[in-house]
Amino acid sequence: MKNSQSTRSRYLSIAGIVMVALVALAWSCKTGGGEVQLGSVDVAGDSNAVIQERGLTPDDVYAAVKTFVPSGRYDDYVMFASGGHSGQILVIGVPSMRLLKVIGVFTPEPWQGWGYSDETRAVLDGAKVEGRDITWADTHHPALSETGGDYDGEFVFINDKAHARIAVVDLRDFETKQLVKNPIALSDHGGTFVTPNTEWVIEGGQYAAPLGWKYASLDKYAEEYRGMVTMWKFDRSAGRVVPGESFAIELPPYWQDLCDAGKAVSDGWLLCNSFNTEMATGGIEDDKPPFEAGASQRDMDYLHIIDWRKAAELAAAGATTTVNDFPVLTLETAIAEGVLYFLPEPKSPHGIDVTPGGEYMVVSGKLDPHVTIFGWDKIQAAIAAENFSGKDDYGVPIIDFDAALETQIELGLGPLHTQFDDKGYAYTSLFLDTAVARWTLGGAYAGGHDEADWTLVEKIPVHYNVGHIVAAEGDTVSPDGGYLVALNKWSVDRFLTVGPLHPQNFQLIDISGKGPSMKLLYDMAIGIGEPHYVQMIKADKLKAWEVYPEAGWNPIQQALDPHAVAIGEEKVERRGKTVEIWMTGVRSHFTPEKVEVKKGDHVIWHITNVERAKDATHGFALPAYNINLSLEPGESTTFEFDVEESGVYTYYCSEFCSALHLEMVGYLLASPS
Amino acid sequence: MKNSQSTRSRYLSIAGIVMVALVALAWSCKTGGGEVQLGSVDVAGDSNAVIQERGLTPDDVYAAVKTFVPSGRYDDYVMFASGGHSGQILVIGVPSMRLLKVIGVFTPEPWQGWGYSDETRAVLDGAKVEGRDITWADTHHPALSETGGDYDGEFVFINDKAHARIAVVDLRDFETKQLVKNPIALSDHGGTFVTPNTEWVIEGGQYAAPLGWKYASLDKYAEEYRGMVTMWKFDRSAGRVVPGESFAIELPPYWQDLCDAGKAVSDGWLLCNSFNTEMATGGIEDDKPPFEAGASQRDMDYLHIIDWRKAAELAAAGATTTVNDFPVLTLETAIAEGVLYFLPEPKSPHGIDVTPGGEYMVVSGKLDPHVTIFGWDKIQAAIAAENFSGKDDYGVPIIDFDAALETQIELGLGPLHTQFDDKGYAYTSLFLDTAVARWTLGGAYAGGHDEADWTLVEKIPVHYNVGHIVAAEGDTVSPDGGYLVALNKWSVDRFLTVGPLHPQNFQLIDISGKGPSMKLLYDMAIGIGEPHYVQMIKADKLKAWEVYPEAGWNPIQQALDPHAVAIGEEKVERRGKTVEIWMTGVRSHFTPEKVEVKKGDHVIWHITNVERAKDATHGFALPAYNINLSLEPGESTTFEFDVEESGVYTYYCSEFCSALHLEMVGYLLASPS
Repeated sequence: MKNSQSTRSRYLSIAGIVMVALVALAWSCKTGGGEVQLGSVDVAGDSNAVIQERGLTPDDVYAAVKTFVPSGRYDDYVMFASGGHSGQILVIGVPSMRLLKVIGVFTPEPWQGWGYSDETRAVLDGAKVEGRDITWADTHHPALSETGGDYDGEFVFINDKAHARIAVVDLRDFETKQLVKNPIALSDHGGTFVTPNTEWVIEGGQYAAPLGWKYASLDKYAEEYRGMVTMWKFDRSAGRVVPGESFAIELPPYWQDLCDAGKAVSDGWLLCNSFNTEMATGGIEDDKPPFEAGASQRDMDYLHIIDWRKAAELAAAGATTTVNDFPVLTLETAIAEGVLYFLPEPKSPHGIDVTPGGEYMVVSGKLDPHVTIFGWDKIQAAIAAENFSGKDDYGVPIIDFDAALETQIELGLGPLHTQFDDKGYAYTSLFLDTAVARWTLGGAYAGGHDEADWTLVEKIPVHYNVGHIVAAEGDTVSPDGGYLVALNKWSVDRFLTVGPLHPQNFQLIDISGKGPSMKLLYDMAIGIGEPHYVQMIKADKLKAWEVYPEAGWNPIQQALDPHAVAIGEEKVERRGKTVEIWMTGVRSHFTPEKVEVKKGDHVIWHITNVERAKDATHGFALPAYNINLSLEPGESTTFEFDVEESGVYTYYCSEFCSALHLEMVGYLLASPS
Repeated sequence: MKNSQSTRSRYLSIAGIVMVALVALAWSCKTGGGEVQLGSVDVAGDSNAVIQERGLTPDDVYAAVKTFVPSGRYDDYVMFASGGHSGQILVIGVPSMRLLKVIGVFTPEPWQGWGYSDETRAVLDGAKVEGRDITWADTHHPALSETGGDYDGEFVFINDKAHARIAVVDLRDFETKQLVKNPIALSDHGGTFVTPNTEWVIEGGQYAAPLGWKYASLDKYAEEYRGMVTMWKFDRSAGRVVPGESFAIELPPYWQDLCDAGKAVSDGWLLCNSFNTEMATGGIEDDKPPFEAGASQRDMDYLHIIDWRKAAELAAAGATTTVNDFPVLTLETAIAEGVLYFLPEPKSPHGIDVTPGGEYMVVSGKLDPHVTIFGWDKIQAAIAAENFSGKDDYGVPIIDFDAALETQIELGLGPLHTQFDDKGYAYTSLFLDTAVARWTLGGAYAGGHDEADWTLVEKIPVHYNVGHIVAAEGDTVSPDGGYLVALNKWSVDRFLTVGPLHPQNFQLIDISGKGPSMKLLYDMAIGIGEPHYVQMIKADKLKAWEVYPEAGWNPIQQALDPHAVAIGEEKVERRGKTVEIWMTGVRSHFTPEKVEVKKGDHVIWHITNVERAKDATHGFALPAYNINLSLEPGESTTFEFDVEESGVYTYYCSEFCSALHLEMVGYLLASPS
């Protein structure tokens, strides 16, 4: 197996030879050529001098020219990365690995004005927990909207593991439009994932608890604690999930982990794995096995196989009970109606990934060196034939492991997640090996590669402790290949030390070749959050707006704002103790430039950025009241506050807009009475 | 003058010729060489194929090999960038232009746990305004601590323009330790800057208002509104500014803008420019000239020249009055004691930058195509000779312009800011030209360059609307040269469209050559905040900790935490309705794993991460109470909350730490009574 590091050191010693040859080439062109050639050779000579001075190996030069995106040229792919516990989404270009944007999702972010206007605060209010503001999230799995199992570039969803919440981001303006709190669950993990036409957004649970945030002591764990998966109905035209048309399915109190939607031949079904089928409840402080041991005793946990289409029909027919006013299909009904089956999966499973055509389910158990591959045809046949090895304690039929098994491949230590390419290769992250394995698929994929089916081809080391990986469109029905990114949890020695909190390391890997040919291209530091999952979409599928469609646009409503005004229509109205302002901003002044209020007044302030030029954003900063807006061209927004003190406050443009940007300012005069 | 874009298109057409030559070289090596050479040539051939396939020009290849930093190699420089209205500081490696970290400063940031523990919330509380939480800031000018006028890598300071606040970040752990609200001012701009040995942190004002956040109507502008500069005393051993030893200087109600500390020959003095010496008060809504016009009528504003050492002596001697209990040297005293002088500066000035040896003051007026260079010897001579052209309305002596002038150089439209290199070149950003000009210094710098003194050498276009620029250590007494970064406010067409809010564009420019040789190397998207100023320090000057010095370390105190515990010392104590927990975390469990409380209890929770391995950070997420901690190796921290509801809550490690990270969890059981 090729080891890229030893290869590199082999090349290192002969880098000098290449230099000499290139310099010779430069000289021969210089003597033989006219002015144009001279120019070109000078530049090549400059590059060679830099290569030599910086000690770059041929592999380094390959990586440099493979990833460099010149000024004004665009990246080929865009990654949407969870921001981990930053609560945000990171937008990253590939192959340059440049961070193009951080989208404010669960955490207020003032550059975007996210959470600093009435409208955006109202969206964040959708994510309150027990009535309290929660200004962070542990975002895990972004899911791009799909049409026919392929990314369509319209929306991206993401979950918050810490509080079981999901978010909807509109990719016309890359802004969050909706946050929803799961009404029955404490935490989630198996979300978000979408069905192949984004009819549903899937949110699977994580740590079991009494449904509906109720209290029960741990000694009632088996009886009162439960798992769940929630199906959020998505209305694409409204760009919102519809809680009133959504439902959940009650599951045993195992810890459901990742999920994936079936597609193509397995469309209509949903797969979620689980761990802690031991139902351990910890207790290291009482000399009991800690969770890490107690939840890792059994060799097999259960892959949950769920007929979501049947479940949706049952929910629509009212065959549900309610918890916190939310419809829940009970475990009993799910079993009785053939909605839920289990399939043993080894050991402490983490990743469940469905092949592009939907024919195989790839399971990785953290404590098993194999990937386990189940055949969908075999699963279906076993269900039809009731080929069950028994039932679990809750009565869920357990499909016979051998009947469903296609094959197992030994890859190495700590396999986690699998992605796919266009050549019939699969890629699995190996946490403990800190490597990514390339292996071959069989069946319909056998013609794409030159190796035997179901065989390990190569492992490439990564730095360090890889969690998820992503290949270009690598979880869709038509993966692109070419690039893969390893989401490494530790960077250790890869970057300059920036304090005891080290960045994560996204490593870009070239998977364009066949056979044992993977090349490490680029290390990207992630010094803002710890991303979990990422999806990578072709850049040309994104059709984002460059400016808002019309002046006076309200981004939350995605419609004209009734309070928007044009230049000349600005006004200030006083009604008793309420002062209402309709303001415009344009390079380089706000109108009005003076607003007079009194201590005790209530202020309602509307602002319209009337600009139509791309990038002509104005910020609006008002000190002391925690207000900062980002008004993109055409945007109209509103905020309100009570004048609590008298004083003189300058509001100003906080996004550099013009040579006279500093002069884009006004005075809010709050008189004592 | 060289235009790098036209140069590029000239090379474009001959890129193919270079390819053919390189392929020929590869072939000749292949036929003549042994196995080692073959290997090297194969790699070179791969690179050439990529260059051809991606259509890279020789300039592109130069930029690629100049900026690429291979896995495990480190950047040469580190930039500390203001995060603009994100409220944070961005840490960026040069030449790779990778974002290594976002430091939480004024805005809560959950990945770092910044603002989500008691200790960090207490730091943020230092930044309240009128008693209210302000969770954002408009950060402008980072200032690295200096020793002898050179960066020493120990601290970085930054201001908040929106609220006149400053922050202190300790570069041992890259964490914010202190936030301070200016007690007399509404907004600031001319900060932070440090004196050459960081005795003082300078915070100059921006928009005039009555000192002390008082109310006065705009028609009392001349009488009651005032500007200011505040001198914050810094205690390096404590790592804190000391408000009780700090003071401000009252200034006329012009809008003070940028400042810079004198150094070497001008050490002990402070320069701040100003605009709106017209004392315009806007009023476009009443058909008066808007601020952008009213504040731009005069051809000259005033450079403020301040003897800070004398001011500090006066403050120490009690020659101050107090505003909001803060010592203020009055304008009257400042004039009488020879602390304050004015010098006319054209027109709508923005940047004031002192040359490395302190001999010249470079002023750029946004509406004047020249940079204006004053000689410090001439300024001092004029003061000594009382060579004044008059006094302003407030009695401040105005130094004769011609007496102080060294020279003026026409550079282009919209000059803003100037930096310096090691060869006697200066660099000035041109906002309206959207270019960076290289020009020559004279005097002691004449020997460094080959051109005539005080001459424009070259302009390089940037994309687009450049604000500040930074050269490597380019505002210290010993600039390094080599790299310059243009902080462009608009990116327009440089990156993929990610919605109507476009990223900023940091462009890295190669300034290593002499004469007209600047090369554009790299476009870095900044999709998180709008940076204003940046400082670039040699990477080897930073000596950050890889882990905290000892297990049980409290980062805010930078000392052992009295509540830290070792493994085996964990405990839970109940005292009436207070429950106090001393917990440890280690891969892969928290101890205890079960905490029982009752609705109505008050909970005090201490956690120590006992890890000593680099990068072995544990997160600690507790849902519903807005708590997420980042516990770096050795860190101990505390949070408190009241149990408001009964329920079952899982706390868990939110920073992926090990193969059994998902099992690092515990249950908080809140019973109803």
